[in-house]
Amino acid sequence: MSNKLKLALPKGSLQDATVELFRKAGFNIYVSSRSYKPTSDDDSLELYLIRAQEIGRYVHQGFIDCGITGKDWIYENRADVDVLTDLQYSKATSKPTRWVLVVPEDSPIRTAEDLEGKRIATEGVGITERWLAEKGVKADVEFSWGATEVKVPDLVDAIVDITETGSSIRANKLRIVDTLMTSYPQFIANKKAMQDDWKREKLTNIVMMLRGALEARGKVGLKMNLPKESLTTLVETLPSLRRPTVSPLSDDGWVAVETVIDESVARDMIPQLKALGAEGIIEYSLNKLVY
Amino acid sequence: MSNKLKLALPKGSLQDATVELFRKAGFNIYVSSRSYKPTSDDDSLELYLIRAQEIGRYVHQGFIDCGITGKDWIYENRADVDVLTDLQYSKATSKPTRWVLVVPEDSPIRTAEDLEGKRIATEGVGITERWLAEKGVKADVEFSWGATEVKVPDLVDAIVDITETGSSIRANKLRIVDTLMTSYPQFIANKKAMQDDWKREKLTNIVMMLRGALEARGKVGLKMNLPKESLTTLVETLPSLRRPTVSPLSDDGWVAVETVIDESVARDMIPQLKALGAEGIIEYSLNKLVY
Amino acid sequence: MSNKLKLALPKGSLQDATVELFRKAGFNIYVSSRSYKPTSDDDSLELYLIRAQEIGRYVHQGFIDCGITGKDWIYENRADVDVLTDLQYSKATSKPTRWVLVVPEDSPIRTAEDLEGKRIATEGVGITERWLAEKGVKADVEFSWGATEVKVPDLVDAIVDITETGSSIRANKLRIVDTLMTSYPQFIANKKAMQDDWKREKLTNIVMMLRGALEARGKVGLKMNLPKESLTTLVETLPSLRRPTVSPLSDDGWVAVETVIDESVARDMIPQLKALGAEGIIEYSLNKLVY
Amino acid sequence: MSNKLKLALPKGSLQDATVELFRKAGFNIYVSSRSYKPTSDDDSLELYLIRAQEIGRYVHQGFIDCGITGKDWIYENRADVDVLTDLQYSKATSKPTRWVLVVPEDSPIRTAEDLEGKRIATEGVGITERWLAEKGVKADVEFSWGATEVKVPDLVDAIVDITETGSSIRANKLRIVDTLMTSYPQFIANKKAMQDDWKREKLTNIVMMLRGALEARGKVGLKMNLPKESLTTLVETLPSLRRPTVSPLSDDGWVAVETVIDESVARDMIPQLKALGAEGIIEYSLNKLVY
Amino acid sequence: MSNKLKLALPKGSLQDATVELFRKAGFNIYVSSRSYKPTSDDDSLELYLIRAQEIGRYVHQGFIDCGITGKDWIYENRADVDVLTDLQYSKATSKPTRWVLVVPEDSPIRTAEDLEGKRIATEGVGITERWLAEKGVKADVEFSWGATEVKVPDLVDAIVDITETGSSIRANKLRIVDTLMTSYPQFIANKKAMQDDWKREKLTNIVMMLRGALEARGKVGLKMNLPKESLTTLVETLPSLRRPTVSPLSDDGWVAVETVIDESVARDMIPQLKALGAEGIIEYSLNKLVY
Amino acid sequence: MSNKLKLALPKGSLQDATVELFRKAGFNIYVSSRSYKPTSDDDSLELYLIRAQEIGRYVHQGFIDCGITGKDWIYENRADVDVLTDLQYSKATSKPTRWVLVVPEDSPIRTAEDLEGKRIATEGVGITERWLAEKGVKADVEFSWGATEVKVPDLVDAIVDITETGSSIRANKLRIVDTLMTSYPQFIANKKAMQDDWKREKLTNIVMMLRGALEARGKVGLKMNLPKESLTTLVETLPSLRRPTVSPLSDDGWVAVETVIDESVARDMIPQLKALGAEGIIEYSLNKLVY
Repeated sequence: MSNKLKLALPKGSLQDATVELFRKAGFNIYVSSRSYKPTSDDDSLELYLIRAQEIGRYVHQGFIDCGITGKDWIYENRADVDVLTDLQYSKATSKPTRWVLVVPEDSPIRTAEDLEGKRIATEGVGITERWLAEKGVKADVEFSWGATEVKVPDLVDAIVDITETGSSIRANKLRIVDTLMTSYPQFIANKKAMQDDWKREKLTNIVMMLRGALEARGKVGLKMNLPKESLTTLVETLPSLRRPTVSPLSDDGWVAVETVIDESVARDMIPQLKALGAEGIIEYSLNKLVY
Repeated sequence: MSNKLKLALPKGSLQDATVELFRKAGFNIYVSSRSYKPTSDDDSLELYLIRAQEIGRYVHQGFIDCGITGKDWIYENRADVDVLTDLQYSKATSKPTRWVLVVPEDSPIRTAEDLEGKRIATEGVGITERWLAEKGVKADVEFSWGATEVKVPDLVDAIVDITETGSSIRANKLRIVDTLMTSYPQFIANKKAMQDDWKREKLTNIVMMLRGALEARGKVGLKMNLPKESLTTLVETLPSLRRPTVSPLSDDGWVAVETVIDESVARDMIPQLKALGAEGIIEYSLNKLVY
Repeated sequence: MSNKLKLALPKGSLQDATVELFRKAGFNIYVSSRSYKPTSDDDSLELYLIRAQEIGRYVHQGFIDCGITGKDWIYENRADVDVLTDLQYSKATSKPTRWVLVVPEDSPIRTAEDLEGKRIATEGVGITERWLAEKGVKADVEFSWGATEVKVPDLVDAIVDITETGSSIRANKLRIVDTLMTSYPQFIANKKAMQDDWKREKLTNIVMMLRGALEARGKVGLKMNLPKESLTTLVETLPSLRRPTVSPLSDDGWVAVETVIDESVARDMIPQLKALGAEGIIEYSLNKLVY
Repeated sequence: MSNKLKLALPKGSLQDATVELFRKAGFNIYVSSRSYKPTSDDDSLELYLIRAQEIGRYVHQGFIDCGITGKDWIYENRADVDVLTDLQYSKATSKPTRWVLVVPEDSPIRTAEDLEGKRIATEGVGITERWLAEKGVKADVEFSWGATEVKVPDLVDAIVDITETGSSIRANKLRIVDTLMTSYPQFIANKKAMQDDWKREKLTNIVMMLRGALEARGKVGLKMNLPKESLTTLVETLPSLRRPTVSPLSDDGWVAVETVIDESVARDMIPQLKALGAEGIIEYSLNKLVY
Repeated sequence: MSNKLKLALPKGSLQDATVELFRKAGFNIYVSSRSYKPTSDDDSLELYLIRAQEIGRYVHQGFIDCGITGKDWIYENRADVDVLTDLQYSKATSKPTRWVLVVPEDSPIRTAEDLEGKRIATEGVGITERWLAEKGVKADVEFSWGATEVKVPDLVDAIVDITETGSSIRANKLRIVDTLMTSYPQFIANKKAMQDDWKREKLTNIVMMLRGALEARGKVGLKMNLPKESLTTLVETLPSLRRPTVSPLSDDGWVAVETVIDESVARDMIPQLKALGAEGIIEYSLNKLVY
Repeated sequence: MSNKLKLALPKGSLQDATVELFRKAGFNIYVSSRSYKPTSDDDSLELYLIRAQEIGRYVHQGFIDCGITGKDWIYENRADVDVLTDLQYSKATSKPTRWVLVVPEDSPIRTAEDLEGKRIATEGVGITERWLAEKGVKADVEFSWGATEVKVPDLVDAIVDITETGSSIRANKLRIVDTLMTSYPQFIANKKAMQDDWKREKLTNIVMMLRGALEARGKVGLKMNLPKESLTTLVETLPSLRRPTVSPLSDDGWVAVETVIDESVARDMIPQLKALGAEGIIEYSLNKLVY
């Protein structure tokens, strides 16, 4: 029987970004609207679309070998798993998700301590209760199925909710009191699965490709012809131009220089390269980058 | 201070149908994408968009006076509230929602009894546990955040899930073992709120208008001129043509007949009316119908 | 065994308009993207979605009892069927479809006779050959699978194509030489099916409802209160206000007048009614109208 | 030669609502994306799509007989025309358009007087200058081509802009200092055209139909059977139920009552009618209503 | 007079994919909704949009020099043309089109022989008749205008239809009995046109570019720096890494290696390259690839 | 305090193309639907979305340091600014915008001189008046708010309007008499701002990157292995293959050649390269190209 790796993808807001990341990493995943079990062009993967809230639990229990989910839900579930890599992407921006304690703008609650004896609604009951315990505060924490923001102040005194930019909070005339934790996606594996040689190597390779695809994001390739005498200056004055590949040209006075830089610094660096005498500067896109 | 009625609308799959029903009943509700508190053209209403799962709980506790939610979630929450009326509509069709016990097509589980000692995942932990207790069966029920169907058989032995048509179940090669309950939307009120005169009368009027709008759905108005001598035959042979309004016409041999019928029988009844000598048969649409 | 009527609906450009016409006539037809056999809320109908080109043939052969298709394709197929009613609707406008002989703007072909010995491409090979035979002209007629207009003058000398407004013809710098036939949808039935009592009555009722729905299109209901003394003038000066229903009112000097008019004349008639002393003039929409 | 009425419709934000209003009034207007001259099903109309800013000018000059435009632009252009009727509709809501003086939230400008010597940008140079003159204030008014809100405070000190709800103003952290004028669409005619008998009658009829369509908006028809003895109470206690049409029924103890009410009061009135013994209360929609 | 090549593109399901393939090959084709004759940025091309069913016929007759159409329709038309290259793409996937004999799931027909004396409907009358002749089976083959699947079993006994994935067949409860032929797009030319020097060279170049664009699909470029001593191992252990371009670097111990691989093997190969000591591995996309 | 450059982007038809151009140049600009002040990932930029008509004026006055707008509006505003570079892009195509004098097809106006004493409507009053003055013609020029084409011949005798392709003019049965000016976007700066060292250098770099992004459009990178002996022939016979980068390979008989060419010539050049013995020809896309 052939080897299989059971891999859980987070259903919901992270789903499309995750499938896209795998595609860039070289794994084409096909999600059908008729089935919860995606297929892929890698026959050794057995895929599951599971809510992010539950992936940590099932990986911990060993029903699933590995998966991508948020650090927050791993913590909420007290899942004891191996974290193989952080994956610094999120839905819209690259900002981490924050769990924040929120009250109405005009609430008297200003600190965690003011919550003593109050009622709090949240999707993250475990996160909230462990944070309150650390603070030594006693409060009523009730599970919220969503639309949490509408509940203050009529239904509860405070809420603990997820935010990325805080703009929805301000629009609802609410105020952030404190941040309980920040979170971002992680690639996790079951501890026992990591002791299986085939699974461990497979996981290592997947991680390398996922990281290669993430690295390439926001990076660009740069190549140019440079007068040989400028080469030293180039390396000295542009230390950020790391590890350029220098190759000889037929024309003895020139070398070909090739490197990878952050797309965001290209606009500053290209004028400097031009000033050093570079010619035919070309910028192009990358799919993957593995150092 | 003016009277206010706190009314909860179900956020999510029932939301648009509920807002549309209120509109037909004469209440224009405006849901803003920026706020969870809808507004309306009735200043005495204070509106909340809350998940159907929680409305029963908040109405029971009295934080909200009344709301529309499913019979299932009222039961799940053991909410002790007054049911003012059933509202026989649902998302796509008019079929009630069913909670069903589902297993893989080839599972050995055939009856509730076969669940003894098994693991079940469901969004309705209370519904499931109370049903198992009635059956005298002991099983592990765990809360599922969604995407429940993917969990059998790898993660759990059975699931209890909501279905309207069963088509998604068949598409996932699953099998329905039993039905735990059927559900449809209900308009509920807090018991104490019903003792307040203003609130009770307001609620009674809203119910009358909601029912008037529901009644008009699938009904049409019909009017025609009929030879006076056919009137008796009309009433005798078409008993389903209930309570026609008959008014005299200037032309003595004729009367004007007006009535309301189910749209679905119009195609059979109009030919019969024509055969009775009716002329100028007009069919038109209704907004509301209050008997 | 219960009676069944096999009814063919034209797949393609007329499909949506046909389903909508049946809906207005009181028959809800459900077309699924997964199946070619639509369902309906009338269990005695067995529905088929078939291309308009073939419906005449299958009704003629008796595989299907009845159907809606264009007069042109019935003629093309030499189908010997009963035409129950014309249905004067078409896709965008209410203009009939025309089959026209088309050549490039600068072609020497000016009359049918100029086609002698030429090559013609068309979807309607039968229509074209029978028309040429009537004219006593011999030409090569080849079947065209579509995109016919691109073929002149490089691939053939002339084409016979369908047009509704002629605008596409002008846009392609083509010229209409002659009109072979005009066509509109017809409801046809197999001759043998018409001898079956149940089928004939069912077909008669369907036709009555389809015509009732078509009649109501572009008509509106009008009602008003009118001074009794204006009644004679009303009938005399507005003969187009046919067969008004006049009923007495409690106020002796007034009568209630109700009628149905073409929507397009309402803008002229209402000012005249106002001039006659009419009050409270109301215009409303109709679903069906059966005289 | 047949009579023609040159009618200008406002191109832009009011366009669709205007075409829809004419449609409800019984005039079908066809706007083609390829031509600025719409066509209609009334051959005596010659239609122009012109910017609202210019319609007043061209009607005043007599190049156009009549048109629909905002009161504001008529005033801006100092157009001397006959106003045939106000048309109380606007793009999204039924609120009138307001021209407001706007400054940054933290600007020292608090009153019109604070504008002395300042720079103001606006699309309505005439409106602003005439308002400043009335206030006796001298300021620099420059024409703005749009995107006016971005200009304060970097490019000008204040702006005069159009608002319907004020929400965009708050979102840009601006503050309304004063309202210069409120505006709504008006149907205007050239003074000389009004002296032509045919044109004046045509215009009168169009106005009647436009008003009939506007009246019907937000109104509904109501009919019911009522015990004869309740009729007096009905009229006394529900004076808002104006001018009901009462007709006798075959059943002597009952009358048929029919009337038109505001849709927004139906939800209060229907329960009252029910309390008076009304049966079979039907509510239906209206297309036009001409008293 | 300048040389012209008449080229037919298949109108319909292959159209967009064909235009896109030409774009990738360097030919920008503009399809106007108003005209059937597309234009391009290559003045020596004269383009026609013709149904795939007819292209073979017109190329065979010489009205058109060349075109892209399916192998099936070339065969159906018995078109005697030069096939310049297969183009292994199709609408959604890269699977070839199959012509299959289809019957209802519960039909007694199990082999070609069971068709003796039966009725078959198909768009490919020629394909079907030639296949039946090869099998020595006599059956009635009638032309179907489309919607063929609805015809079994009520209208005909079997159909011959096109399928790519077979899913629509299963959804309609049909069964595939046999495959008549498989087909994919081909680039064909008229035999006489191939004897014209200019046309033959032009066709050769177009074929080279179309193949270059197809080759690049699913391939990626890979470059990296490699320790010189790993070079031999690289070539030996990764034979699939064909024809790498190896160039010297300024740093003597290292070489730059560049190659092209299938995108689908990148995920396996990159980890192996890394294990060999490769650094700065970059993967990038290709537009064209000509070996 | 840190340096800031105030930069105006043209709101409206050029907006999306401008933001996209900046993105390709390495500056990510975020336009919010709620605010007229875009943000970017370059903190030294302060961005404004202003109508193209006004940017020249504000840059001239110094309220804004620099901006992108059309040459036409700079001229209309008589703005005295530094033109840093032309940006040869426009909305749909790369054709320049033309200001043309337009009359009805059948107008007697044939030359500028025929305008004497006539009425002209235009958005570009300054452009038109200065052009008439050069021609020594006196005419009435009135400002048009848009929809200018509908005005001839009923409201004015001629119009001066913008066109890119002329197709809308023909569709409205109008005729172009003369071209007043052609225009394309320009990047302009305030003269005083250019004397500030930081601003001038910042502007120079932005221009270099914008031009680099524009250069890369329609260009592709090409690389291949070439037999050493073909190198001379390559350079001689393909002079358009400018400045190829030639680097040695491990295999002595071959060199690696890399260059950049116009995408539109690739289809002609690749066959020639192949004929010279080139192997492994790869074409890829560029983001930026700075010579």
